[in-house]
Amino acid sequence: MDPRLRNLDFAFNPRSIAFVGATESMRKWGFLILNNLLTGGYAGEVYPVNPGRETILGLKAYPRVSDIPGEVDLAVFTVPARQVMDALQDCARKGVKACLVITAGFKELGSEGEALEKEMVRRAREAGMVLIGPNCQGICCPTNDLFPWMPILFHPPRGRLGYVSQSGNILNMLIGNAVVSGLGVSKAVSSGNEADLRTVDYYSYLGEDPETEVIVSYVEGLQDGRDFVCRSREVTARKPIVVLKGGRTSSGISAAKSHTGAMAVSGDLFEAACRQAGIIVTHTIEECSLTAAAFVNRPLPRGKRVGIVTGGGGLGVIASDFCTEIGLEVASLSPRTLEKLEKMLPDWWVPGNPVDLVAGLDFSVIKPVIETIMTSGEVDAVLFLWIGAPRLKNAGVKGRRGMDLSAIWKTMDQYFLEHLSELYDLMHQLQVPLYIATTLPVDEASEADGCRPLVFTSVEPACRAVSAMAEYYHFLENNS
Amino acid sequence: MDPRLRNLDFAFNPRSIAFVGATESMRKWGFLILNNLLTGGYAGEVYPVNPGRETILGLKAYPRVSDIPGEVDLAVFTVPARQVMDALQDCARKGVKACLVITAGFKELGSEGEALEKEMVRRAREAGMVLIGPNCQGICCPTNDLFPWMPILFHPPRGRLGYVSQSGNILNMLIGNAVVSGLGVSKAVSSGNEADLRTVDYYSYLGEDPETEVIVSYVEGLQDGRDFVCRSREVTARKPIVVLKGGRTSSGISAAKSHTGAMAVSGDLFEAACRQAGIIVTHTIEECSLTAAAFVNRPLPRGKRVGIVTGGGGLGVIASDFCTEIGLEVASLSPRTLEKLEKMLPDWWVPGNPVDLVAGLDFSVIKPVIETIMTSGEVDAVLFLWIGAPRLKNAGVKGRRGMDLSAIWKTMDQYFLEHLSELYDLMHQLQVPLYIATTLPVDEASEADGCRPLVFTSVEPACRAVSAMAEYYHFLENNS
Repeated sequence: MDPRLRNLDFAFNPRSIAFVGATESMRKWGFLILNNLLTGGYAGEVYPVNPGRETILGLKAYPRVSDIPGEVDLAVFTVPARQVMDALQDCARKGVKACLVITAGFKELGSEGEALEKEMVRRAREAGMVLIGPNCQGICCPTNDLFPWMPILFHPPRGRLGYVSQSGNILNMLIGNAVVSGLGVSKAVSSGNEADLRTVDYYSYLGEDPETEVIVSYVEGLQDGRDFVCRSREVTARKPIVVLKGGRTSSGISAAKSHTGAMAVSGDLFEAACRQAGIIVTHTIEECSLTAAAFVNRPLPRGKRVGIVTGGGGLGVIASDFCTEIGLEVASLSPRTLEKLEKMLPDWWVPGNPVDLVAGLDFSVIKPVIETIMTSGEVDAVLFLWIGAPRLKNAGVKGRRGMDLSAIWKTMDQYFLEHLSELYDLMHQLQVPLYIATTLPVDEASEADGCRPLVFTSVEPACRAVSAMAEYYHFLENNS
Repeated sequence: MDPRLRNLDFAFNPRSIAFVGATESMRKWGFLILNNLLTGGYAGEVYPVNPGRETILGLKAYPRVSDIPGEVDLAVFTVPARQVMDALQDCARKGVKACLVITAGFKELGSEGEALEKEMVRRAREAGMVLIGPNCQGICCPTNDLFPWMPILFHPPRGRLGYVSQSGNILNMLIGNAVVSGLGVSKAVSSGNEADLRTVDYYSYLGEDPETEVIVSYVEGLQDGRDFVCRSREVTARKPIVVLKGGRTSSGISAAKSHTGAMAVSGDLFEAACRQAGIIVTHTIEECSLTAAAFVNRPLPRGKRVGIVTGGGGLGVIASDFCTEIGLEVASLSPRTLEKLEKMLPDWWVPGNPVDLVAGLDFSVIKPVIETIMTSGEVDAVLFLWIGAPRLKNAGVKGRRGMDLSAIWKTMDQYFLEHLSELYDLMHQLQVPLYIATTLPVDEASEADGCRPLVFTSVEPACRAVSAMAEYYHFLENNS
């Protein structure tokens, strides 16, 4: 890794931050982002920089960065583009290590902006600073309660997913999908125009970050395809990279041009490059978010044979179809395994895979069934699907008669939560990955750390995750 | 429509219900379903039938249906299979109009069960009764607070979506997805083994049901393909049918066989038949739920040209790609239209479609922008994408400094909600369908009636809905 990239440590774990463009005007980014930073709980020093004010949001303000008494690790810029250069010079003199340039109005606006952008990068590199952006929405690092970014009051919990995105908007959606599923973020960066640091630089950095287990990335364009493949491959040898590509079609590419001014590469070329680099390519926002999240704290399937355990016949049909359609194999269980299962399940159970748990939600049956399938040597992954009606807000007893069943309901939820961890223990012990999809509420058990294995809420995303993880295993096998 | 099907009115709007197999044993279906019925608020008479009890859940119980003093419109069966025949005879004598046989253990268990099933149907038809099931999870009709079905405390609101499903499990998921999006149900039926009434019978019935605007259906097998196509086509001429097929692959078909014992048809054959019949075929549970829901209270696109209005560049890229990939066309806006838009948007707006609302969430801009695109004659549908970070439970002010931004947030939500209906008014006035995707909370505005147009939470399902609705328009045009 380029040693200059180590300066990103000062961006994600700064002892102090200068905020160039701090303001109390509530509609300005200089307020919104500063406020996100302050309300996020960041414990280091924050120095608002604004020549027109004595204090901002209760903090002493400074006319210039060089007026700040203490050291400054990170400088955040929200001033207009024409003022950035001057402040950046000042940061260089001050010995700032990392600059986060939120400001737009550079390359994406044409040649004048491009020239300004180049000059800015030249100066930053000369001073040994790294530069994030410009034209981005910021970064976050929940471990340090660090949220110098745009999305209002969006403070995701810490976790194992690291994000690099060429769109702030898509970044928020990707993180959002993982977070509502109970997972968390190690570090996230909106890379903007990538004037200095590029997507692959962040991959390299997150590749060596012990807090990041999986890298999730939205990419519109690449400045150097060969460099991207080559350096991504060094990362994928250690941890997975899951990518969503924007600009896969001519109309997408044309939209990307007016968005980040990115030199878009065609979808097919990009996918080929990714395959070479062991990068997992996804095609929708949901698929990207959940596939990446599926890697967290879960062993890899060593092949494509899937055992399916369901709480309903229709679920087994849908899962079998979808697995087959995306190239997985619904495992043929041997007579020996089926015989073992037959002893655990009621008389009217029809032997086969999917295994329909006709007996209901009884973990004294479910656990040995799953264990038997895992230890059979006949599957590479197990899907456990227990999905039904969701919990409705208006649920409850409306009628004039009858008992209150909400107690049964609560008991069922608790029962499920209590046994969930046993199933995961089984997975880690036997090293056969388990993918659970359920509408029973699991977030209570998981909110705490953002590091437990993802629980899915529907069938198809779980199947896609198995497929992607099996492919990654295959890549590692063939490239080690 | 077969006049006997009119008896389904007695199933969905019964004046009184006999519950054969009522019990207070809390783990039995005879309790769970009865309790759902009672707690659902049903206002008609409910007569528990159980020869061993004086009362059940506070209601007077009767030894046999023929002992019930008043008239009985609907009989629900949860007694074991071998007892159904006798009770059914009794219902016939009593003049019951509709039988809902929840009980399993018929055709799906082999030839003995099949013979029993045939005899049961013969007797029901002889008596002019319709028979729903057997081996099903029940029905619902929220308008009448009628929930004689399995899913515990699942009382969806009334709405315009009618459901027919060969799996109870999938039925709950399909309804669940619509309901959490704020939509509601007209009538739903889990059709089970379809011994008497088949999927297409319910299509015919719902086709004439004024409360049902769209039919949503999960199908594993068909007993008579020609009849299915022919009669479905009569329905699709009036209202859309959106189908999810289980058993599209050999492994799915094999799973379906042990599930409902259905004579599964191959996926390709089925899709061809559906195309002929104007039925919309979908491939995932989410796609099926949301595509169907998209039809509610929304005009059809008269073609495939899409205008995209976004609150972020990346969203426009993703939407352009996905539209193109599924056969939609990102509309080319004329210089005249772009000129009009240029006057409404800031200087730094880059003219084109997608239209990136660089100005932020300002409806005094958004509304004329959307109106200009709708009236241009250059688009057949408009996507309005305003998606960002979701609302997190842990959101709020954590830090030691800074203002509380949650007020801004609430104001933004209210602002959005207030203007949503204006946009829908525009849609209905101009008859150009509008598809909104947003993470801003809209359920408060919609909980009430379950009949307002669906608001999406992600890009891709919205694009799929445009495509499906445009195809349905095309079908209607070519078959009128």
